[in-house]
Amino acid sequence: MATIDLNCDLGESFGAYKMGVDEEIIPLITSANIACGFHAGDPLIMERTVALCKVHGVRPGAHPGFPDLSGFGRRNMNLSPKEVKACVTYQIGALKAFCDSASIRLHHVKPHGALYNMAATDYRLAEAICQAIHDVDPSLVLLALSGSEMLRAAMECKLSYASEVFADRAYEKDGTLVSRINKGAVIEEKEKAVMQVVRMAREGRVKAIDGTDLSITADSVCVHGDGANALSFVKRIREELAVKGVEVKGF
Amino acid sequence: MATIDLNCDLGESFGAYKMGVDEEIIPLITSANIACGFHAGDPLIMERTVALCKVHGVRPGAHPGFPDLSGFGRRNMNLSPKEVKACVTYQIGALKAFCDSASIRLHHVKPHGALYNMAATDYRLAEAICQAIHDVDPSLVLLALSGSEMLRAAMECKLSYASEVFADRAYEKDGTLVSRINKGAVIEEKEKAVMQVVRMAREGRVKAIDGTDLSITADSVCVHGDGANALSFVKRIREELAVKGVEVKGF
Amino acid sequence: MATIDLNCDLGESFGAYKMGVDEEIIPLITSANIACGFHAGDPLIMERTVALCKVHGVRPGAHPGFPDLSGFGRRNMNLSPKEVKACVTYQIGALKAFCDSASIRLHHVKPHGALYNMAATDYRLAEAICQAIHDVDPSLVLLALSGSEMLRAAMECKLSYASEVFADRAYEKDGTLVSRINKGAVIEEKEKAVMQVVRMAREGRVKAIDGTDLSITADSVCVHGDGANALSFVKRIREELAVKGVEVKGF
Amino acid sequence: MATIDLNCDLGESFGAYKMGVDEEIIPLITSANIACGFHAGDPLIMERTVALCKVHGVRPGAHPGFPDLSGFGRRNMNLSPKEVKACVTYQIGALKAFCDSASIRLHHVKPHGALYNMAATDYRLAEAICQAIHDVDPSLVLLALSGSEMLRAAMECKLSYASEVFADRAYEKDGTLVSRINKGAVIEEKEKAVMQVVRMAREGRVKAIDGTDLSITADSVCVHGDGANALSFVKRIREELAVKGVEVKGF
Repeated sequence: MATIDLNCDLGESFGAYKMGVDEEIIPLITSANIACGFHAGDPLIMERTVALCKVHGVRPGAHPGFPDLSGFGRRNMNLSPKEVKACVTYQIGALKAFCDSASIRLHHVKPHGALYNMAATDYRLAEAICQAIHDVDPSLVLLALSGSEMLRAAMECKLSYASEVFADRAYEKDGTLVSRINKGAVIEEKEKAVMQVVRMAREGRVKAIDGTDLSITADSVCVHGDGANALSFVKRIREELAVKGVEVKGF
Repeated sequence: MATIDLNCDLGESFGAYKMGVDEEIIPLITSANIACGFHAGDPLIMERTVALCKVHGVRPGAHPGFPDLSGFGRRNMNLSPKEVKACVTYQIGALKAFCDSASIRLHHVKPHGALYNMAATDYRLAEAICQAIHDVDPSLVLLALSGSEMLRAAMECKLSYASEVFADRAYEKDGTLVSRINKGAVIEEKEKAVMQVVRMAREGRVKAIDGTDLSITADSVCVHGDGANALSFVKRIREELAVKGVEVKGF
Repeated sequence: MATIDLNCDLGESFGAYKMGVDEEIIPLITSANIACGFHAGDPLIMERTVALCKVHGVRPGAHPGFPDLSGFGRRNMNLSPKEVKACVTYQIGALKAFCDSASIRLHHVKPHGALYNMAATDYRLAEAICQAIHDVDPSLVLLALSGSEMLRAAMECKLSYASEVFADRAYEKDGTLVSRINKGAVIEEKEKAVMQVVRMAREGRVKAIDGTDLSITADSVCVHGDGANALSFVKRIREELAVKGVEVKGF
Repeated sequence: MATIDLNCDLGESFGAYKMGVDEEIIPLITSANIACGFHAGDPLIMERTVALCKVHGVRPGAHPGFPDLSGFGRRNMNLSPKEVKACVTYQIGALKAFCDSASIRLHHVKPHGALYNMAATDYRLAEAICQAIHDVDPSLVLLALSGSEMLRAAMECKLSYASEVFADRAYEKDGTLVSRINKGAVIEEKEKAVMQVVRMAREGRVKAIDGTDLSITADSVCVHGDGANALSFVKRIREELAVKGVEVKGF
């Protein structure tokens, strides 16, 4: 039976600022990527989010980002691989402490935003991230873009990894995501996005923006956790996966 | 044979800012309290300081502080016990990750500056700190002011602890430190400070500022790591301890 | 004819984090206290909020707070008067630049949160704030708690000031606010709060929590800008003020 | 008589962290570029540095940088022109408030580090910076790399500007600086650097790294303010300029 993991970025509130509907989305997913205080999140939020994971049997992962709270980690920053390695080590450790305190195992690491995107194509950054993960705990799993340099670096570092795909993003014929600055990058039509997920999960294939039919590894689908539409979309994905005989299950 | 530990706050540089002479002081001490990025320190500095500890056989400890970089963690902040617990958990975890990466065991936790001072007399904060430490790893040791509420909280939490004393600070007759806002709080005369250490280590006694002779538990002496005077002072302490038959040894 | 100003804290969003319904509340008020990036707000938000003030003919004021983004400036911090003066100068200047850019005059300064509360009773902090304001621009007006040390310091510094009152807060018989940790501190009953405003504006009197009838100077009422209840409450206040012949007008 | 300005980046300390020998360098220069709290500097340091300028008759300028304290503003960050404009406005205003408080006129603006370098070749960023400066106060002068896009943007914005040259940096034949990643980028030989300054000031010419003799506009030379070598180098430049009949004078 085909299986797929549903992951979501959580714990993105900060101090008095609330972001996301974590309590509502968490029962619908299998893996949580928890912000670690650099681009979002703070110690109290991390503690609460890990507790939520425990209650709902969701696997917690660290979601390290650039030290850029005002930019939410979405702006490219020119950090050296050495700086990236240290920043990722720090953030994994911070989240792991909350997992240790709550007696729940830290399961994976998924880089955030600009760090995720830059490392997807820059092998030196990808390697820095993978070495950071491996050196803290070699049993951690990297969750990163299907087909990216990050997964190649994980292989080299003998790190376990899972391939992430997107429901609502269009793919180029080489398997990369269509850049958000191009037309058609985001799949606005809900049912089309749902069907893309189902096909990636069942057949391991996706139709690229130019019509090419591609092979793609889909261990986990990224879903969003902000707002009513996000919730209904995840519910619809789960419904259709069930109908098509795909089990939602942690990677 | 009497023994005493020499501890020093290290890793207090930040980005382009250098503070302290870590490379020179570290061969002279037995325990290092490493800043964790809230009041001082950053990921690269933490990585380097842990590596220094490993090279010199010094035991690394976490040195968590208030989230107040511009005040170097020296300004009282009105955090709730819940906030303190989460901030301490976060910082311990961040440092532990660098220890794990370097295959060296994180040994102890010593709160910094205003957090240290406030928790020395506020049991609820002390308890929050001890619970944070215990929940992350119950084998960690709390290093805190001899006779303080922090040690009382450690006992209640069944956490190991070590009593810290100061070479160059005067004591009140109740065993607390003379406040820095009072005259005579800092012992300026070098030899007097050296003799205070030796007597605390050998006899477990100290002369208070009013002349009272007190009993005091001295597991570890705090020495400073900034500047040429600090270095020569530590060397002088070690010399005199050797002469008087006190072994310098980790707690 | 009696007049009163309605002020509201605005521009409290930060980066990707949204707080408050600034666009909806601003047409209903006469003075805006704009966060300056220390406890909330960022450069883009400040620029937008000043632009909103200009469109709606609302007077912009600086709303400086402690350097404590994760605590939203609500946690007491032990800054020296010298540090407070410099922090307030910095924040006023930052906001004034956006006013200068938009060709609108910066009108007043109202300290935020813990800084507001601490300076209400600590004359040295109050004086530091008033000197900061005076030295940047002596034509600026201080907006602060009616009857507080801040207004006394403003008088001493020859700074103009306006007395702020609260619709939904109970008063002690000495004219101070009932502390939020005490029962009855917040007036939950909407109509009671509306009537308190009307009476303070028309008669300059308020009934204290113990029943004493007090004289109070009410130049400006603080209203809140977060959520649907806040909006309807402000509308109700305006309605009742109109009925009772009190004009809503900048101080 | 030929004249040249000597400018130096000052006020780069932060909290407990000291950087530079501001007190010693300031009597030797004519323009100070003062850090504004984003990449370095803090409110107290800004206040002190402006006071130093006043005492020594040195013209204060704002030195805005990226919001990257841990990277000292030296790491490229992908801010939009809109974000850059707001960040520059904010920082100019913050420094201007300290100038207003000290009754000294803010004179110029020189972007820092990565922002300076990126805007030197990216017209959209250059324009954002110039518009920010112009909108806050059109009498401010932009100080930026001779021949750069920043000066071109200043012309378009009808902003006054001054052309900055470097004593110890080699030039390409197109007048840009040799990148620091290339060999020969920094002129290590002190006398060679001194002579480069003198020739740029007197003749408006410089020998490029490939031997080409270039025309260059030199209104101000950037000197460094960190360490004993920096001081003796500036003294040597002043000595040689005097010998060769070039007056050191603000632009």
